[in-house]
Amino acid sequence: MRKIIECVPNFSEGRDSSKIEQIAAEVEKVRGVKLLDVAPDAHHNRTVLTFVGGPDSIKKASYSAIEKAVEIIDMARHQGQHPRLGACDVCPFVPVQNVAMADCVAVANELAREVGEKLQIPVFLYGEAARFPERKDLASIRAGQYEGLEAKLKDSRWKPDYGPAAFNKKSGAIVIGAREFLIAYNVYLSTTDKELAHRIAGIIRESGCLATADDGRKIRIPGMFRSVKAVGISPGEPGVAEVSVNLTNYGVAPMHLVFEKIKQLGQLAAASVLYSEIVGLIPREAILDAGRFYQPGARSEKKLIEAAVKNVRLDSPQGFDPGAKIIEYMIGTS
Amino acid sequence: MRKIIECVPNFSEGRDSSKIEQIAAEVEKVRGVKLLDVAPDAHHNRTVLTFVGGPDSIKKASYSAIEKAVEIIDMARHQGQHPRLGACDVCPFVPVQNVAMADCVAVANELAREVGEKLQIPVFLYGEAARFPERKDLASIRAGQYEGLEAKLKDSRWKPDYGPAAFNKKSGAIVIGAREFLIAYNVYLSTTDKELAHRIAGIIRESGCLATADDGRKIRIPGMFRSVKAVGISPGEPGVAEVSVNLTNYGVAPMHLVFEKIKQLGQLAAASVLYSEIVGLIPREAILDAGRFYQPGARSEKKLIEAAVKNVRLDSPQGFDPGAKIIEYMIGTS
Repeated sequence: MRKIIECVPNFSEGRDSSKIEQIAAEVEKVRGVKLLDVAPDAHHNRTVLTFVGGPDSIKKASYSAIEKAVEIIDMARHQGQHPRLGACDVCPFVPVQNVAMADCVAVANELAREVGEKLQIPVFLYGEAARFPERKDLASIRAGQYEGLEAKLKDSRWKPDYGPAAFNKKSGAIVIGAREFLIAYNVYLSTTDKELAHRIAGIIRESGCLATADDGRKIRIPGMFRSVKAVGISPGEPGVAEVSVNLTNYGVAPMHLVFEKIKQLGQLAAASVLYSEIVGLIPREAILDAGRFYQPGARSEKKLIEAAVKNVRLDSPQGFDPGAKIIEYMIGTS
Repeated sequence: MRKIIECVPNFSEGRDSSKIEQIAAEVEKVRGVKLLDVAPDAHHNRTVLTFVGGPDSIKKASYSAIEKAVEIIDMARHQGQHPRLGACDVCPFVPVQNVAMADCVAVANELAREVGEKLQIPVFLYGEAARFPERKDLASIRAGQYEGLEAKLKDSRWKPDYGPAAFNKKSGAIVIGAREFLIAYNVYLSTTDKELAHRIAGIIRESGCLATADDGRKIRIPGMFRSVKAVGISPGEPGVAEVSVNLTNYGVAPMHLVFEKIKQLGQLAAASVLYSEIVGLIPREAILDAGRFYQPGARSEKKLIEAAVKNVRLDSPQGFDPGAKIIEYMIGTS
């Protein structure tokens, strides 16, 4: 069986389609790599590419895409609602077929060295590739964002794993790593309360949120779902709030239950769900699970997928195309 | 080691202190039984007694208390906010020391036979003493309440386990059973939204709540905490909503986390917690756990209990007296 690794880099450009095409074209040029999805988001001003290939070709394709992004994106001018550190913000490798997590960690290290040395960009390793416990979590590396990066790089605790520690104004920094399959899933609510999405994220995500005890001490209230990360994002359009979710194990925290909980919590604040959105790809099993939840009796995959799409109100600026979004993927026990 | 069983009957009288005293006096008369707590609730018009003793004396005391309640309470005139079926609404036996659940089931059966035969009241067995799966859960037996009891008794599926199937207008029916230790815990919120407590209960309790799928089908959305039962109760005072909670395993779902979640959910609806209340008793370990959550550094039990009481805002119409409320009790693995 062929070795297949998935690569899902996030680039800080979601509006200029010519630039997005140039980056995607770099991936398509590489033999042995298949570009599965290009998901631009104008509001976040961010694009997620999804492509698969063997260890060597995936590394080549990811390097070329990053090189192009670094050439054509200027972080000093970047505006967008999603937390980010650099032109290529994060580049994870995911084991799909006949490869171990260790293979993905190796590819991440090779890419990180090349990006650091040739492009002179600070590189942090995260997830399964992290060398320090505090770099395991993407959110802590990204804390302070691009705007806080210059100061962060002066802190010896944040010495990059590869590349220079000097601030690169044009390109920022890049986070490279390895992780299990992740469903990037956003739920949009109709509300004028700017804090609502943030509060809901704090209730559903595994890490929970901080509260203040009687004596002023900060206490952490654990969240509702294991294997869920979430942040609330300030609405771009007035009256809209977004809960941006990462499902890091859809067997533990399925999309449909996370959707239903966000819907319930929104209702407490008189906010209704406008639609939800999958950024990148979703494994076939995850969407079939949702279909079985809403229509236990349905026999055909087509009916199950329809039931899932309707009930969690999947949509996107381009509409939701199951054929283009659903991949074969069985999550492993990690 | 002495055999100790706890009995926690709920009587449908919470306002007339002379009647409450007469019922409690029946318990105190019995040798070998210790009355630990009398918790009247005027709003619910309901009183919970807590007493402990060996198998024989606990049965004697519970029978006498029920006999007295049946004599002096007239359900045809009863008004109150808590769901109830009869004058003595529910009478559970709980293993505390050197007894098995089977011993409590035996006591429940003996009491049920005596109440059914001598007092001519329909008796349902519930919890660990249930003979039918659909009677395991108190809520399903109590569905329809006293007002719906006459019709329910005509349904052959609801033939009582003991006593007559005929409707007893004055006394209603009684539910007798056996269960693990349970913390009865209420959280009061400041809100004018009558649905709020009901919605929050549906989000936190294990059984979750029903929602409607796209095709009109009812789907069950699972709740947040295992080992939690909860209902929302219509506010007695205007502007107050109550989430009435049963913690059936405080190791799995601790009081302080349930409190914090209700607080968070209330905040989504701009409702704040007024106070929370323990009906009956709370095991020492449960309140110390709460103290450790809020003040991990505190050394003395006194400080831990203080931290718990302050942070979950324990109160009651009589004030909160830790000395009178806290019992030694270690929950078993069930």
